[in-house]
Amino acid sequence: MRATLIYGAGDVRIENVPDSVIQQPTDAVVRVLAACICGSDLHPYHSMKPTEKGRTIGHEFVGVIEDVGADVTTLARGDVVIAPFAWSDGTCVFCQEGLQTSCLHGGFWNANGVGGGQAEAVRVPQADGTLVKVDVPEDSPLLPSLLTLSDVYGTGYHAALKAEVGPGSIVTVIGDGAVGLMAVLSARRLGAEQVILMGRHTVRTDLGIDFGATHVVAERGEEGIALVRELTGGLGSHAVLEAVGYREAYDQALGVVRPGGVISRVGMPQYTDAPIGMASLFGRNIRLAGGPAPVRAYIEELLPDVLDGTVDPGRVFDSTIGLDEVPDGYRAMDERRALKVLVKP
Amino acid sequence: MRATLIYGAGDVRIENVPDSVIQQPTDAVVRVLAACICGSDLHPYHSMKPTEKGRTIGHEFVGVIEDVGADVTTLARGDVVIAPFAWSDGTCVFCQEGLQTSCLHGGFWNANGVGGGQAEAVRVPQADGTLVKVDVPEDSPLLPSLLTLSDVYGTGYHAALKAEVGPGSIVTVIGDGAVGLMAVLSARRLGAEQVILMGRHTVRTDLGIDFGATHVVAERGEEGIALVRELTGGLGSHAVLEAVGYREAYDQALGVVRPGGVISRVGMPQYTDAPIGMASLFGRNIRLAGGPAPVRAYIEELLPDVLDGTVDPGRVFDSTIGLDEVPDGYRAMDERRALKVLVKP
Repeated sequence: MRATLIYGAGDVRIENVPDSVIQQPTDAVVRVLAACICGSDLHPYHSMKPTEKGRTIGHEFVGVIEDVGADVTTLARGDVVIAPFAWSDGTCVFCQEGLQTSCLHGGFWNANGVGGGQAEAVRVPQADGTLVKVDVPEDSPLLPSLLTLSDVYGTGYHAALKAEVGPGSIVTVIGDGAVGLMAVLSARRLGAEQVILMGRHTVRTDLGIDFGATHVVAERGEEGIALVRELTGGLGSHAVLEAVGYREAYDQALGVVRPGGVISRVGMPQYTDAPIGMASLFGRNIRLAGGPAPVRAYIEELLPDVLDGTVDPGRVFDSTIGLDEVPDGYRAMDERRALKVLVKP
Repeated sequence: MRATLIYGAGDVRIENVPDSVIQQPTDAVVRVLAACICGSDLHPYHSMKPTEKGRTIGHEFVGVIEDVGADVTTLARGDVVIAPFAWSDGTCVFCQEGLQTSCLHGGFWNANGVGGGQAEAVRVPQADGTLVKVDVPEDSPLLPSLLTLSDVYGTGYHAALKAEVGPGSIVTVIGDGAVGLMAVLSARRLGAEQVILMGRHTVRTDLGIDFGATHVVAERGEEGIALVRELTGGLGSHAVLEAVGYREAYDQALGVVRPGGVISRVGMPQYTDAPIGMASLFGRNIRLAGGPAPVRAYIEELLPDVLDGTVDPGRVFDSTIGLDEVPDGYRAMDERRALKVLVKP
C-alpha cells in the first residue's frame, strides 16, 4: 500500500510500504477515506533531522473497517469510523477518567510499529477502545466535519473546557490555525460572551467570525496585548486558549489573561522552560491548563451537532488533494497558502 | 508605638515608630492582640539587601479596633477582628469574585505607607472590606486558631481548593511548615482519601498526622518521588499541594503528580522560570494552580469549625513571645527550633 513518510525537514515522500494487517487480536485495519495534515505535522517538517529510513506521518483519519482481530467486539467490516489522534484501550483508569491520551495501554500513531494516517490504510491497535463508529455512508458530505473530530475540533474543545469557559466568559484565542478556529467554535458552544481571536490572516479570522468570534485582533506582542486589554475593560480575559505552541504565544497569553484566569494550552509547546513565578502566574493566581487533547472523550458529545448540521467544522479544510499530492500539501500549509489540507487516498 | 523593622538579611529590630492613626475615612486602627512570624518572612530574612531606613514587617494579626474613620460602617471601637494578609475593599470585581489579593483598590501590608502586623498597632485601609469581626473576648483561648485565619489556614485551604481536592482524592502535600500542615487539614476537610505529607521534621509531621495525614514521606528528590509513587499504585497523586516555594519543591511536585492532576502552589516561588513543556506539564495534561491566597474569601467559611473546636489549627504555634523577643523568634524559626512563633505585643 502507499503511505506518507517524512525523512527530515522539508522532505516528505509517498512510498510503497507493507500492507496494514492485523497483528494483535485487538487490532482493526482501517482503509482511509479521508486524512489530513495537521499544524503539528509542520514541526517535524521544519526541524526533523535527516534520516535514512524515514517514518510514517499523519494522525487524523476517518475510514472504513477492512478487517478486525478476534477480540474486537464492537466493530465489523464496512463500519465507517473516526480515529482519534491517540489510540487507547477505553478501559484503564485514565480512559475511564476521560484522559485517553494517558491510556496505560495506549499510544500515538507513527510509533512502536503503528503507522500513520496519511496512508491508504492503518492498523489500529485497541480498536474497540479507539475507534468511534458513525452511521454515515462512505461518501457522506459530512466526512470533512467528521474528520475534525479526529483532532482539531476535539482539541479546540479541550482548550475551552480546561479553561472552564462557560456562560459569560470573556475568552481570548491565540492563533488562527484550524485548532484556534475550533477553539472559537467551542468557546461559543460553551456559552462564552466575548471571544477575541488573535490572528492576522484575514481569510482565517473571517472564518473565525463565522464560528463565533466577536472581535479580531491582528496585532501581536505588546500592541496586541494592549488592544485585548482595552476590549476587556482593562482587566484581561477569564480564559486564554493558546493554540500555537511557540513561546511568544505563551508570553502573549500572560499579557492578556485576567487575575484569577486560566491559560489553556493546546498548541504543542516548542519550549521547555517559561516564566511561572510571582510576576507571571503566581502573583495573579493564574492557572495553567491543557495538553494533548483526549479527543476520544469528546467525540460522542460533539458528534450530534455535526451530524445534524448545527455546526460545520469541516469548513477549516480549504484544500483537498490525493495521496500523491501530500508533499505539495505540506508546502501549501507551510507557506500558509492553505489553512488545512484534506487528503483523499 | 513599637514595631518590628527589617533592615536586611538577619537584621530585625524593634523600634519606636509614629503611632498608627486614621489617615483615610475608610481606615481603622487596630491594636494588635496577637501577630506571628510567617515562613515567607524568612525570605527577606535570608536575602534582603542591607538598607539604612529599614521597613516594617509582619502580615498576620488579630486585634481590637481602637479607632475608625468616618466612612467605616461595619466596625466599632472594641470589636475583635481578624486581619487577612492582604487588605481589600470588598466591593471591586475581583473581591466579588473572591480574589481579594487582586483587589483593584487593595494592597499588602508593609508597602505604600501601610505598616506591618508585628507591631503594637496597625492602620488598616479599607477596613470594612478587610477586617472580619469575631465575637470573642480579647483574652479568648481561641486567639491562636483565629490568628491562623489571617494567613496559614486560609492559604492551606486555598491550595487544596485550587487543586480541586474532594472526596476520594489522593493528595500529596510538599512541606511540613505551618502552611503545609494547614494544607493537610484542609485536604481532609474537603474529603481527601489519602494525604501523603512530605516532610522530615518529626515534630511537624506528627502534628500533620494529627491533622489528618495518612502517610509521611521523609525522603526528598528522586527517592521521595519513588516512595510517593509506590503509595499511589504507581500512578501519582491527583493533587499536589506545594507549600515550600523553592524550585526543588516544584520539581518534586512534577515527580509525584498523576496525569490529569493538579499542582497547586502556595509557597511563594523563589524562582521565575521552570519546566512547563511537553515532558513536564503539557504531555500529561497536568494543571498548575495557586497563588497568594485570598484568605479574606475563606474566613467566614472556616470560622465556625474554629469557634466550635472542630479543628484546632492554632496548634501550629509552638512558641509565644513578646514584641521585644521578635528578633529571637526569627532566629528560632530560621533554625527550625520553632514551627511557628506567636507574638503578643
